[in-house]
Amino acid sequence: MKAKIVINGYGTIGKRVADAVSVQDDMEIVGVVKKSPDYGALLAEKKGYPLYAPDEEALKVFEEAGIKVKGTLNDVLSHANVVIDSTPGGVGKKNKLIYDKYSGLKQIYQGGEKPDVAEKSFSTLCNYEEALGADSLRVVSCNTTGLLRLLCTLRKIAPIEQVRAVMIRRAADPREIKKGPINSIVLNPVKLPSHHARDVNSVVPDINIVTAAVVVPTTLMHVHQVTVRFREKTTLEKIIEVLSSAPRIMLVDTGRTGIKSTAQLIEAARDMRPRNDIPELVVFRDSIALLNGNELMLFQAVHQESIVVPENVDAVRAVMKLAKTAEETVEKTDKSLGLRREFFY
Amino acid sequence: MKAKIVINGYGTIGKRVADAVSVQDDMEIVGVVKKSPDYGALLAEKKGYPLYAPDEEALKVFEEAGIKVKGTLNDVLSHANVVIDSTPGGVGKKNKLIYDKYSGLKQIYQGGEKPDVAEKSFSTLCNYEEALGADSLRVVSCNTTGLLRLLCTLRKIAPIEQVRAVMIRRAADPREIKKGPINSIVLNPVKLPSHHARDVNSVVPDINIVTAAVVVPTTLMHVHQVTVRFREKTTLEKIIEVLSSAPRIMLVDTGRTGIKSTAQLIEAARDMRPRNDIPELVVFRDSIALLNGNELMLFQAVHQESIVVPENVDAVRAVMKLAKTAEETVEKTDKSLGLRREFFY
Repeated sequence: MKAKIVINGYGTIGKRVADAVSVQDDMEIVGVVKKSPDYGALLAEKKGYPLYAPDEEALKVFEEAGIKVKGTLNDVLSHANVVIDSTPGGVGKKNKLIYDKYSGLKQIYQGGEKPDVAEKSFSTLCNYEEALGADSLRVVSCNTTGLLRLLCTLRKIAPIEQVRAVMIRRAADPREIKKGPINSIVLNPVKLPSHHARDVNSVVPDINIVTAAVVVPTTLMHVHQVTVRFREKTTLEKIIEVLSSAPRIMLVDTGRTGIKSTAQLIEAARDMRPRNDIPELVVFRDSIALLNGNELMLFQAVHQESIVVPENVDAVRAVMKLAKTAEETVEKTDKSLGLRREFFY
Repeated sequence: MKAKIVINGYGTIGKRVADAVSVQDDMEIVGVVKKSPDYGALLAEKKGYPLYAPDEEALKVFEEAGIKVKGTLNDVLSHANVVIDSTPGGVGKKNKLIYDKYSGLKQIYQGGEKPDVAEKSFSTLCNYEEALGADSLRVVSCNTTGLLRLLCTLRKIAPIEQVRAVMIRRAADPREIKKGPINSIVLNPVKLPSHHARDVNSVVPDINIVTAAVVVPTTLMHVHQVTVRFREKTTLEKIIEVLSSAPRIMLVDTGRTGIKSTAQLIEAARDMRPRNDIPELVVFRDSIALLNGNELMLFQAVHQESIVVPENVDAVRAVMKLAKTAEETVEKTDKSLGLRREFFY
């Protein structure tokens, strides 16, 4: 029997998670909940997802707009196993009051919520097994997911002594028209460290990490400059071998592809992927440097709109115990979504 | 007797250096050399600077455009003590062949040239005394000047073990219309380290520094995230005391001013300064963090158009031996240009 999934919130993350869930053989979408009858609602209808409104009031607005909905959030929650909350940051916490009324309903939240919204913060490569059977999980944010995929892969090489990362963040998503800056570099926050370090520690408490972050005028992807000091010496060959064989990480070779920017990455994705999504963490192979045998420096890029999609699918498997190990869910998820460890072409 | 200065190149740097030189009591401008009769030439004429063309051919173009020039570069070099070359990167090297024909003519170049263009790479707070009487100096680039001002100030606190810096660079100057990116983060370079580390070492060879750099779509200022590990423990109070009393560094307090971005800094400068110039290195006071007593992290901002202006004035004093110490030239330069150690207002 497939796990019955409700996706509450059909924005940037919700619409992608819906598409990802719908191609899994062990889960099915029983409802997509959308707040307002805009182009996103038309898309959900077009895709054939059972559409629901958050409440009776919203339902009327949908009806007036001529879009058919099957009922309200409460109607669909009553026959669901898992709700994936992909509403804007902070709204999930309020929705929790509704979800808690349905005993046995597993809850999955996004990284825009504070850690205390769920039993555990979650990132597949770091703590899948610990999350098995949890009642609620919080899939950490895009930047944190990117850091955690890297760090939980690198710690296989040698114990990590410390991590310093500078996050150069995109200002807004491509569709957003009211956010900035359009000509500034903004310290966000001014005071170090940024919250990303704490968020990494919400999943892996024992990593010594400090992060600093700025926001810059671009919409495509985040870029991280990461410096990792290992407790033991290693080699560049070993690092490249581990990164190139790791799941969820795409090693991009600038020498071969000419790619040295987020714009070029997205252009390559536009040729190959729906919505030019890159759910893989992109590590720039040519940027990898090893100093003194133990200090690794590299650049990586994070597609903020799609990187957390595989982890949301895995989170369903974790709470429903549909796969026993990280390896098992990663294999299913990545195959179904077409994730690559090498460049697109 | 005042030192007679020719400024060859009247673009972003040249026009600012001309204004700075013209308010010094120990130097005077005998000529500004401009390549083409555009709005910059009209400005030089308006300001009353003696205008020269690079050669006979350019001279004719000026005459045809109705702008009077006094002669060619060769004419003015024959009665000059110092030429400040502020032509585009790489052109200075070619001009050197001309300058070398005038025995006794001191030469000052910008950071766009390679280090071998001059006897010494120069940054006032680091190596003024070593540069005294040199025949030629290269004032390092804006980013390197920013790093060197910080590091040569910080090394007074304790010996520096290592420096790691991530430079988030502006894509173009405000007036430039053909440079990008306009929606991308570009690794520049992909391969670590970026040239800034080598350039720091061209002035201070004994600092262990690695730099990484990206270019982002903004025109206002560069931002650096800098991590400095001292060999000895120190305190946050000591660091703030030293930075707040150091010349050429403006400590900006976000708590008091609300400033947390380059756009806000430039807006404040627009209220107070011609061309909204900020020749001071801006250090964000609230970003200063000290980990484990010896690892300093901070954000700083560099106004690429004006930060090297004071160092160009000092370079004249160094080659002409017009001031014996860094302190002496810094006092004269900073007073004449109105440089501040505290916020504008």
